[in-house]
Amino acid sequence: LLSRRFTALAMSRSDHSYWSSVHSEIDTHLEQAIPIKPPLVVYEPMHHLAFDAPQTSAPALCIAACELVGGHRDQAMAAASALRLMHASAFIHKNLPLTHRPGTRLTFDRTFGPNIELLTADGMIPFGLELLARSDDPDQNNSDRVLQAIVEISHAMGSQGVMEGLYNELEHDKSDGEEGFPVWWLHNVCRKKEGTLHACAGACGAILGGGSEEEIEKLRSYGLYVGMVQGIFNRFGGNACAWKEVKELRDLALKELKDFDQAKVITISRLVETKVL
Amino acid sequence: LLSRRFTALAMSRSDHSYWSSVHSEIDTHLEQAIPIKPPLVVYEPMHHLAFDAPQTSAPALCIAACELVGGHRDQAMAAASALRLMHASAFIHKNLPLTHRPGTRLTFDRTFGPNIELLTADGMIPFGLELLARSDDPDQNNSDRVLQAIVEISHAMGSQGVMEGLYNELEHDKSDGEEGFPVWWLHNVCRKKEGTLHACAGACGAILGGGSEEEIEKLRSYGLYVGMVQGIFNRFGGNACAWKEVKELRDLALKELKDFDQAKVITISRLVETKVL
Repeated sequence: LLSRRFTALAMSRSDHSYWSSVHSEIDTHLEQAIPIKPPLVVYEPMHHLAFDAPQTSAPALCIAACELVGGHRDQAMAAASALRLMHASAFIHKNLPLTHRPGTRLTFDRTFGPNIELLTADGMIPFGLELLARSDDPDQNNSDRVLQAIVEISHAMGSQGVMEGLYNELEHDKSDGEEGFPVWWLHNVCRKKEGTLHACAGACGAILGGGSEEEIEKLRSYGLYVGMVQGIFNRFGGNACAWKEVKELRDLALKELKDFDQAKVITISRLVETKVL
Repeated sequence: LLSRRFTALAMSRSDHSYWSSVHSEIDTHLEQAIPIKPPLVVYEPMHHLAFDAPQTSAPALCIAACELVGGHRDQAMAAASALRLMHASAFIHKNLPLTHRPGTRLTFDRTFGPNIELLTADGMIPFGLELLARSDDPDQNNSDRVLQAIVEISHAMGSQGVMEGLYNELEHDKSDGEEGFPVWWLHNVCRKKEGTLHACAGACGAILGGGSEEEIEKLRSYGLYVGMVQGIFNRFGGNACAWKEVKELRDLALKELKDFDQAKVITISRLVETKVL
């Protein structure tokens, strides 16, 4: 939330309307994918849990990356929706009331029981990938790109990506209270969790939009830095040492964009630009 | 376990060696996919949790269905491994120590903490789909079949398939002790859980082996009945009313196989044939 406020501050009106339209189109796509319909026992919790989870900028980055390499946003919409579902799923499982987590943080309204939360979030992972796989259009001959995006997302969400970051975050919570800005946290949580998710978003957008290998890798790296910046803000927004890190990461991020059409770059670069810095 | 013993009883030596070779090839494929390698914190739990979970006949059915329609077992090996991972993931989450599940059934050795169990099983779902997506071979021009199999598996594992069955099972456990054989259980647990998994296995095998639409649908239905039979045995193996259901399901299952090459059908039909009936 903090990071979104900072980002919003820095935006011109046209940038703002760009990101608003991207977010609202992803919402609409997801609303259509998981309407509240029978069987209500399935769709009601999935709908609410997906929409109630805090948002991340990864899905929007996926769309922006697709458009930056010359693609149409529709080509990346299913992947963006999948990323949103994956993020919601990780959030729900992070907050699951496991027996060894006394006083599990009640950061969201607990409308549904733990079985529903556990299994609905389980269902979101394959559901997201199903949306993506179904977006394959034989007329467009895009099967290879869709498969590549499935590999990217499934790898990023797995045990060497977001899940590893989440594990590190959960384990580290036990020893909270550290002073200053922990570099350990930056590399083992922010890089793995928000970093991997955004790197994957940048790469998937570029893949689905028809970008070159070089463009894909640049947008993957850009996404990594964006994610790390977001990760720092989410937890250490008010920490001066953290801001120093953010500044360095922002410079690295912008370097990745220097070979793209600079007129188009302005909007996407807003994800790491903040007036506060 | 019970069902595997029954099934084994009914097998001729050649059938037995067929299923042994299928199981062992899936094991080998999975051993290679998740070796115990660095980072050990990731691969060790994933390896152990995947191999320690009870087995299901769905992966083997996937291979057999592929071969029945004239495919080579290699074409279905990644899908079979994915199904095995999905099943293991569901098993782990079923046994997760959630706060509202006092005395969670300790049906397997608890070597790893609940966070590891939760997140490793989370990671298995995309990992299985990643294996499948990576099995796409541009030389074989099989992207469409791989994507179709991804849709099948992700749909089957989602909130209207295995996860729904698992939810019903977990909720129903609360009111255990019912006499006789509950038809409710057959339709809301066995059909959804084991049934959907095996139906998906049959369909995926047929898709990847290049079967026709009709063959795919027949093997999907066959798999559904196989799964329901297995589901009944897993829970109600010694119940006479249950055996009556099994006999009916077996007849329905065998009807689905009648148009295939009967010499080949003998082996695959062993999944519902038992000497005990």
